[in-house]
This record gives sequence, structure tokens and C-alpha cells, in this order.
Amino acid sequence: MIEIADLKSAVQTVLPQADHLFKEIGQRTKVGSGICRPPYGEGEQFAADVLAATARRMDLEVESDWAGNLYMTYPGTAANASRYVLGSHLDSVPQGGNFDGLAGIVAGLSTVAALQHAGLRLRHGVTVMGIRAEENAWFGAQHIGSRVALGIFEPELLDSARRIDTGRTLGEHIVEAGFDIRPIQKRTRYIGPGQIKAYIELHIEQGPLLESRAYPVGVVTGIRGNVRCAEGVCVGRYDHSGTVPRELRKDAVMAAAQLAIEMDALWQRWLEEGRDLVLTFGKFTTDPAAHSLTTIPGEVRFSFDARSHSTDVLAAVKAELLSHADEIGLRRGVEFKFGRFSQGEPAAMTDNLRRRLAEGATELEIPFVEMASGAGHDAADFALAGVSTAMIFVRNANGSHNPAEDMRIEDFGLGVELLLWLLTRSE
Amino acid sequence: MIEIADLKSAVQTVLPQADHLFKEIGQRTKVGSGICRPPYGEGEQFAADVLAATARRMDLEVESDWAGNLYMTYPGTAANASRYVLGSHLDSVPQGGNFDGLAGIVAGLSTVAALQHAGLRLRHGVTVMGIRAEENAWFGAQHIGSRVALGIFEPELLDSARRIDTGRTLGEHIVEAGFDIRPIQKRTRYIGPGQIKAYIELHIEQGPLLESRAYPVGVVTGIRGNVRCAEGVCVGRYDHSGTVPRELRKDAVMAAAQLAIEMDALWQRWLEEGRDLVLTFGKFTTDPAAHSLTTIPGEVRFSFDARSHSTDVLAAVKAELLSHADEIGLRRGVEFKFGRFSQGEPAAMTDNLRRRLAEGATELEIPFVEMASGAGHDAADFALAGVSTAMIFVRNANGSHNPAEDMRIEDFGLGVELLLWLLTRSE
Repeated sequence: MIEIADLKSAVQTVLPQADHLFKEIGQRTKVGSGICRPPYGEGEQFAADVLAATARRMDLEVESDWAGNLYMTYPGTAANASRYVLGSHLDSVPQGGNFDGLAGIVAGLSTVAALQHAGLRLRHGVTVMGIRAEENAWFGAQHIGSRVALGIFEPELLDSARRIDTGRTLGEHIVEAGFDIRPIQKRTRYIGPGQIKAYIELHIEQGPLLESRAYPVGVVTGIRGNVRCAEGVCVGRYDHSGTVPRELRKDAVMAAAQLAIEMDALWQRWLEEGRDLVLTFGKFTTDPAAHSLTTIPGEVRFSFDARSHSTDVLAAVKAELLSHADEIGLRRGVEFKFGRFSQGEPAAMTDNLRRRLAEGATELEIPFVEMASGAGHDAADFALAGVSTAMIFVRNANGSHNPAEDMRIEDFGLGVELLLWLLTRSE
Repeated sequence: MIEIADLKSAVQTVLPQADHLFKEIGQRTKVGSGICRPPYGEGEQFAADVLAATARRMDLEVESDWAGNLYMTYPGTAANASRYVLGSHLDSVPQGGNFDGLAGIVAGLSTVAALQHAGLRLRHGVTVMGIRAEENAWFGAQHIGSRVALGIFEPELLDSARRIDTGRTLGEHIVEAGFDIRPIQKRTRYIGPGQIKAYIELHIEQGPLLESRAYPVGVVTGIRGNVRCAEGVCVGRYDHSGTVPRELRKDAVMAAAQLAIEMDALWQRWLEEGRDLVLTFGKFTTDPAAHSLTTIPGEVRFSFDARSHSTDVLAAVKAELLSHADEIGLRRGVEFKFGRFSQGEPAAMTDNLRRRLAEGATELEIPFVEMASGAGHDAADFALAGVSTAMIFVRNANGSHNPAEDMRIEDFGLGVELLLWLLTRSE
């Protein structure tokens, strides 16, 4: 067993390579002021290529599944033992930051590099996984890569989900990127609980908690589920803004604004009742080709994202959204169309892994806090598929899903220490 | 004096040419499914060129002022008499209809053509005026052409007003189109009350009143004024939609939606108190380069348009907008910026002209109604500059500022009859 001092020293040795990977991938996937790694697009592929090349230089076994997920494996000594999967996602939101997703994959490679540096090989293999298409923002479907790998992806999304920038289907994008949709159509599982000892995902914290309370690391207790509508539309009628009296208007902005405000009031009430919920209309736009200062708006397109640790709250908030929209539609002469809703179940992390991570942080003298994850993660799908699952959060300033994400490499190193501790202390 | 039967026959003779002008200009200024004649842009210039060429074929005197307004004059018999101006505007809103503006200029040319056909020359000259840049939608400034011609345009707008599609200033556009901003900077008047016997504008009705009550023609009593903000912004903060709790959010969509809904409630109350008002947020958009399903929106851009027959109501609604925005800004941690407001005073039409038009419609046996104009028009500026002013509305289906405007040429002919009656009966 590696001593704590040697463990910390091994991590220090490999950090410069991690920093270099962040810089290289960040610089090359920046578009304007933000990071852009669209799933099955150029930026995501660039990240995959750089990481695979790094893994090959480390003599890891590199393979991809039919959805393009990347597996970089440091084999174990026991031939048929299950393996650790250390993973996170390759893609980013549009105009996102560099660390959301990428940090977890680089952390996996850094953990393996530290094992190699220390001359350690474990009984269990360690697979670093670069997962495709986690972000919901592109296809209006979430955690595509991990769900395909686990055989829990709904194949009808191959045809119905379209990427917001290209308008082309998920299936078309997967084929164009060189992968194979036939096993996806058959829901074939590529990896499952039997082959995985544990799935452990390091991820930047995407909220302000660690930063504001000065903890470099968080141990995750559970992951919020969500219910989402990527392409809502409120259809009213375009009219001259000076000549149509109030009662004859079908004003899509007023109607959609009312829906937002009524849902906001509901949210406030539910919080006061102690129900867990966050709720966001992230996109909300009149049509630039048709709107004007002097035209009553005839259309608003909007998105809706609600998250909760409670499955009941998610079902109830969706029902409230639909009934408020119906009622406003009748009152204001507009029609709300929501299209497909995507849903993600809340997921608890595995108790004994959580406890081990807390023990590790204590032994490593890393200040940490146990906390829930407000955001969704691939880890939720591994947990829901029956895999032992844990998550480590690393402190990050300025939130995520924006170009100002700011994770310090020292904090990242503490997260890698914790991963390395867990792997070397759990044989 | 021309007999009623001959007057009607003369108008019938010239209608096919009017119909041809509508079709030619409509077809050539269509972009996608709607009409696009941006001020100092291609579509507006095309309309000006076709109309000027028509006027030259009719042997009219054609001239332009420094802002590019077009004057097509059928001289009178008395050398120094003031003249009638029959005019309206050349431009359209983006994705507008073919008749808003153009109908009044074609009506002027048709009236002159009918005079020529009947072999009549009046003591007063008749100038058909094609006015530039009436629509507020492009520069966030209204009635630019008529205000320049009348010497009541604020020159600072040459630099501060920018066209929404090009981002370039009004001054740059005027110069690029071949006109001269120096007299505009000096507020030099091109025409004034002393030279104009009356300004008469025929315009399609932009609301549903004539269509719904089956009147082909309306005689306008007055024109609503307005107060407008073309480029409002609500600035919040972009954040991850899953991880930031309600009380730490600076959600620009929720804040701007609340402003819209509070103003909507105020509007409802004021209507119940009998105050005249219409109120529209025509543009309302998150930033397509930064928004996403899973990001708390950090910015909303919006426009605001309020109209009333009462100057007091306009001042009060602007004050309410600003104070509600301040209050919401404090409560929700966002900042509202409104930029420049543009304002247009309410204007009454000249009493004796209104009475004459009503007499004319009666004698011509044209069913008509007296009505207020909800929309603003160049006529308001002529009236406010001290010119005797009248307006004739022509029935039009489907409202205006949209591609479905639908004026029947027979109704247009009745409006031209009324213009011809007024000119030939007022010598």
C-alpha cells in the first residue's frame, strides 16, 4: 500500500501534464469567448482525439463503443475482475467553460498516471471513460453517451432528437461521426454493473457552495433529477401594435411571460413548503425574422428546465406547467406547444463509497463537505443502472455553463489524491 | 367643376395603373414571405425609383429633398398659390405588407392621373409626396422623412439612431443613399405651413374596425401619440440552471417577464378607468449566442411601445415603466437599461377638412365612419407643424405590419374618389 506522502508526491508529479491537457483542449475548442464542444461535432472530437493520444502514450488500451464513448484502460492483475470506471463527459454546452466534463476525464488519466509513476498496478483494471453527448442543451436529450453504453437509451431519440445548431438528427450525427446506430437501435449494452466495480466521477461544482464556504472538495450524496422541454412554443397572432385593442390581441410575449411568472410564484410557494425545486426558462425569444417594435408578437420560443431530488415534485411541476399553460392559452387566445419532454430520475450515490471518500478526505487532510448535486450527471445513469457510484466535486469559481468557469489546478490535484486513495485503499 | 359621374369614371380609368404599381413594387420588394423596404435601403429606393419614373411619364415635376423625400408635382394655374400635398411613406416594417405607406403615394399619383384624364388643372398645385423612413422599427426613431422636410427633426439622431439590421447610423445611411445631412444638422425646413394648402394622407386601416363593420372608408379624427424604447435590456447573470438556488439567481427572463406582466396589469386597470392606451413588448429575446436550456438567462433584450390619444397618459406610462423596472431590478438583482425613448405627440386632424371629407363621402355615396387612428402617421407631424391635415383610411383585412395585408383595389378607388372630390370642390 502506497504511503500518504508518496501518494501526494505522485499526484504532484502528474499535475503539469493535466494542466497541459486542459490548456491544449481549451484553446483549441474555444469559439469566440466560450468553449464549444458540440456532441458529435468538431470540439468534442478534438477532445477525444487528444485524450486518446495521451492514453496511447501511457500504454493504455484504447477502444470506443458504437456511440463513440472512449475507454482508456490500465489493466488489472486479475484477468476477470471487474474494473473501476473513472469518467465524465467530452462535450460542453454552447459558450460553456473548459472544466465541466473534461475535468473528470483528465482526473481519471491523472490517477492512472500517478499509479504508473508510483509503479503500482491494481488487482482491478482502471478504465478512464470519455463520455459523449452528456449536455442536454444540444439535442434536448440528456446523457446520451452513458445511456447508450449502459443499454438504457431510448432508440426513438435517434430520429426525433435534432441538434439545435444543425437541425439534423442524433442518428445522422452519430453515423457522420463514424459510429454505428444499429446496436443502439437494439438497446445493446456495452458495459454493465457486472463488469464495473464502481463508477466514480470527478466534476467541478457548478454552484457557489464550495467556493463560498472555502472547501476545495465535496463528496456528493445524490443527484437531482429533472424534467425538461427544449422547444416550447407559444403561438399567438402578429398584429399592428397601435391599432388592435387589448381584448382582440393574441400577444405571445404577454402569454409566455405570464406562464413564467405563474411558475415562478408556484416555485416560491413550494420552497416555503420545503419541496426541493429549481426552475429555469433559459431560452425565451420572439422571432428575429418577424418581430418588431411596432408589431404585436405572434410567437415566443422557450425552454423549460425543472430539477428536484424528488420524483414526485418533478411529476407535479410538469403537470402544473401544462395546466397553467392551458388556462393562460384560453384566457389570452394563444396556444402553447411543448413538444417532447425529457426526464432524468433523481439518483442517490452508493452509501459505502460515500463513506470511503469521506474517510479518504479525512486521512488526506482535505477539507470537504457532503453535498447534493443540483445538476445532472452521467453518474446518475450509472447509479440508476445498478452500478456502485460516487462523485467528487472540485471547487470552481463563477459557476459553470459559462466561459468564466475557474477551477484551480491545486484543488483538482486534491480531487485526484482522493481518487487515488480510494483505488489504492479498496483492493 | 367635374360632375360626380365623370369623377367616378376618371378614377375607374386610372385604377389599372395603380394596381400595376402595387404589383410591381410588391413583387420586387418581397423578401421571403413578407415585404421589406428598409429606410435608405434597397426596397425603399426601388419603390422611389418606380414611382418617380411613373411621375415623369405623367409629365410631373420630380424633385427630392436632402433626406431623399420624393416630390412629384402637378403644377397649378396660379403661380404662387400654396399646394396640396398628397403623401405617405415609402418604407415598410421588416416582413411587412405591401399597402402600408405605398397606398397613400399611389393614391396621390392616381388622383393626379384622374385630373389629367379629365383634362383638369387646379389653381393650386398638387404635390404627391413619397416620404422616407416613417417606420419606427428600423432606427428606433419615427417619421424621419416628414420631420426632416418640416424642419422638426432632432439632428442628434443622425449619430445616435442605428438601423437594427446593419448597426450603422442614420447619418451614414442617408449619405450612402446619396443625400445630404448638412441641412438636416441645421434643421433647415424644406416645406412648411405657408407653402402647403393641406396635407392629406390616404392610408390603409391597420386595425379591424372598417373590415368588421363593412365600411370601405374611414375619415380620421386624430392620431395617437406614442412613447417607445427600441432597445431595452435586462441584465442579470448567466449561471448553471441546476446548481444556483432561487435566492442567488439573477434571472433576466423572470425579471423582464415580471415587468411585462406588471405593465399589462396596469394597462388593464387604466382601461377600466377610461384612459386610452395600448402597450406592446414586440421584441423580447434572450441571446442566441449565450442562452441554453440549462443556463439561467443573463440577458433579455426587449422593445416597448405605448400609444395613447392623451399626452398625460404617455408621460405617466413611461414613468410607471421606469419605476416598476427599478423596483423589480432591486428585488431580483438585475439591471434594466432603456436607452433612448422616442416620443410622438398625439395630433388632431383639421376640423374643416374632416367635415369636407364627410360631405364628400356622403355626396359620393361612399359608406364611411369617423374614427381615431391607433397607429402613428406622417400626418401627425404635418398637423403638429401647423399644416391643415386630414387622413382617409381604406378598409384592409388582416391588419398591417404583416405580409397578409389585404386592401381591395375597389376600396382604394373609393378613397381616390374622395381625394379627387376634395381637390376639385375646394378651389
